[in-house]
Amino acid sequence: MDYAKESLKLHYQWNGKIEIGCRVPLETRDDLSLAYTPGVAQPCLEIQKDVRKSYELTRRSNLVAVVTDGSAVLGLGDIGPEAGMPVMEGKCALFKAFGNVDAVPLCIRSKDTDDIVNTVRLIAGSFGGINLEDIAAPRCFEVEKRLKECCDIPIFHDDQHGTAIVVAAALINAFKVTGRKQGNAKIVINGAGAAGIAIGNLLLDMKFGNVILCDLNGAICRGDDNLTSGQAAISLRSNLEQERGSLADVLRGADVFIGVSRPNLVTEDMVSSMNQPIVFAMANPTPEIMPDAALSAGAAVVGTGRSDFPNQINNVLVFPGVFRGALDARASDINEEMKIAAATAIASYIPDDKLKPDYIIPSALDRKVPAAVAKAVAEAAVKSGVSRI
Amino acid sequence: MDYAKESLKLHYQWNGKIEIGCRVPLETRDDLSLAYTPGVAQPCLEIQKDVRKSYELTRRSNLVAVVTDGSAVLGLGDIGPEAGMPVMEGKCALFKAFGNVDAVPLCIRSKDTDDIVNTVRLIAGSFGGINLEDIAAPRCFEVEKRLKECCDIPIFHDDQHGTAIVVAAALINAFKVTGRKQGNAKIVINGAGAAGIAIGNLLLDMKFGNVILCDLNGAICRGDDNLTSGQAAISLRSNLEQERGSLADVLRGADVFIGVSRPNLVTEDMVSSMNQPIVFAMANPTPEIMPDAALSAGAAVVGTGRSDFPNQINNVLVFPGVFRGALDARASDINEEMKIAAATAIASYIPDDKLKPDYIIPSALDRKVPAAVAKAVAEAAVKSGVSRI
Repeated sequence: MDYAKESLKLHYQWNGKIEIGCRVPLETRDDLSLAYTPGVAQPCLEIQKDVRKSYELTRRSNLVAVVTDGSAVLGLGDIGPEAGMPVMEGKCALFKAFGNVDAVPLCIRSKDTDDIVNTVRLIAGSFGGINLEDIAAPRCFEVEKRLKECCDIPIFHDDQHGTAIVVAAALINAFKVTGRKQGNAKIVINGAGAAGIAIGNLLLDMKFGNVILCDLNGAICRGDDNLTSGQAAISLRSNLEQERGSLADVLRGADVFIGVSRPNLVTEDMVSSMNQPIVFAMANPTPEIMPDAALSAGAAVVGTGRSDFPNQINNVLVFPGVFRGALDARASDINEEMKIAAATAIASYIPDDKLKPDYIIPSALDRKVPAAVAKAVAEAAVKSGVSRI
Repeated sequence: MDYAKESLKLHYQWNGKIEIGCRVPLETRDDLSLAYTPGVAQPCLEIQKDVRKSYELTRRSNLVAVVTDGSAVLGLGDIGPEAGMPVMEGKCALFKAFGNVDAVPLCIRSKDTDDIVNTVRLIAGSFGGINLEDIAAPRCFEVEKRLKECCDIPIFHDDQHGTAIVVAAALINAFKVTGRKQGNAKIVINGAGAAGIAIGNLLLDMKFGNVILCDLNGAICRGDDNLTSGQAAISLRSNLEQERGSLADVLRGADVFIGVSRPNLVTEDMVSSMNQPIVFAMANPTPEIMPDAALSAGAAVVGTGRSDFPNQINNVLVFPGVFRGALDARASDINEEMKIAAATAIASYIPDDKLKPDYIIPSALDRKVPAAVAKAVAEAAVKSGVSRI
């Protein structure tokens, strides 16, 4: 199927992928008097007395904003806020279909960090959570950090943490399949932007082993010139032996390759040089190396971002369940404990006796996964003290 | 029925009066590839080439934000942004039920004009229109004025213009019923805030006659001390003979009383002193004078804001149709021509031979009214040059 052509045609037909639904009867005078004036004054006054009642008396408890500035949309780059909206709407449709989360797309007509932070901060009282999306690095880090500081609802940049969680889930099972233990692995991540750094941080938090981030110039070391703030921060705890060199150099003997970079950067020779290789080549739509090439070069497990190969590492498995769980727990934050719980829940969804090299991650279409993720995330919210129920 | 108690109970049950609906299938891999990645890249690129395509390829063409700062909610005053949300959600539910307009409630956590203007300006690319709601005067005037200058979508403060339009509609028919011609009437408006000034301006634009605005100190004249900017502006064309005095003084011999003020301010004696009185007593829930008292004092036509008396002057008749029409025309503005068209359409909805003193305005529950309003508003948008289709 020519997805581009068909999708465009369908978008013209759909005229929007989401819409507002009305949950209350509005047929009679009494209906109007109860849902609107004069009756509605009473729930207003209840919230005035205790603002937490907004979670019970409005849709806030189930409502998330999907916010972008349109500066890093898919692989298309800075296409502008309005042009990013089809992705945001699609995300909102997925939120509803997979997590029963009501999500509203909002594009912000500014790429100024202050503007983005202020806009989200000022509307945060309308929502139970904020999903940041497709905001370019390094701005996305500061936007997220500042919003986490000033907002009382979860702030979650899906390009970072959704990706990190699903990669961690896949890696848990890839380790099982290859008989590895977490702790001593050498993991090379190619692509040191928002996703790469977030993956690195989560894998380090989960103690998978030594992580080495590479960018265009090869392995990143502590104190390198021109590191972004996110790169500088992770450089303090990654690449423990301060290896230098090209991607090919550091891949030698590595256990894991994780690509969030560009097509065709990884050769069969590079895979062959690894140790019982786990290869997650997630560049879209063309991976860093095609699965058949990686397998013929000796890869033990291969995953990509694509639905037409086995082991699709897709954050559709993550965000609906993570927000479902955070909303259910009325969490004030989505913290590291909740992310790890999500990754673990996705991985455990496949029973050990069903795991195979070409089945390490559940199908992105399986609606039971978000439910399992939500349960684990809500429990982790309670356990880590950020639940407000 | 105890509306306050019942409404509160229902709000707890409803847990939000609106929700997001998904308009697209999301069952198969192909579904995901078309509504989301990779297919969605194509509509994004189309919008990047021509931002107007956002109206065809996303829900923008049907989407309105209902925005408040929570500073003048119903008659409750400044109850805060979150506490205003039940009203905003109710409005969104009515938008959908009566106009098939998708509306999203947004409360802004600031009463600073710059903050409100910037927030709305920065998210305007996500919407086809903005409905401002329950923002206190005089801030609401500046917010609306500045947003109209900087946004390319309609900005409509319903408390001002929705109220003005429905009053104008009722007055057209009250004039017919009482055999009056527009032009020479003496119209006294009590309450010189956002609604009163907007009503005055629209009635003047429609050439009903001489308008006198009163506030707590009586009739407003040109050059009075302490006028707000809105009052100062309308004083230049209202109260033509610069009458001074109390409400009772200026009501003597007047044709029309319009109250957007407080309960029980108007006595039977005041009504008796008028000329074949038209009395619109719209203070909520208790009018400036009760209908039976006004009628026994000789009122020819009486209207209130309440559904339990005849002639309910309710802007539910206005906003769903006005925005439906503005969206259908893809209007850049809701201008005076469109407001007059809306008032005229509501009035003409009742055939002349059906008009009676206790039936001058259609039922707020009649869903054919918004359709008639929408048609007239869209035509006026085209005729006045603000349509972009």
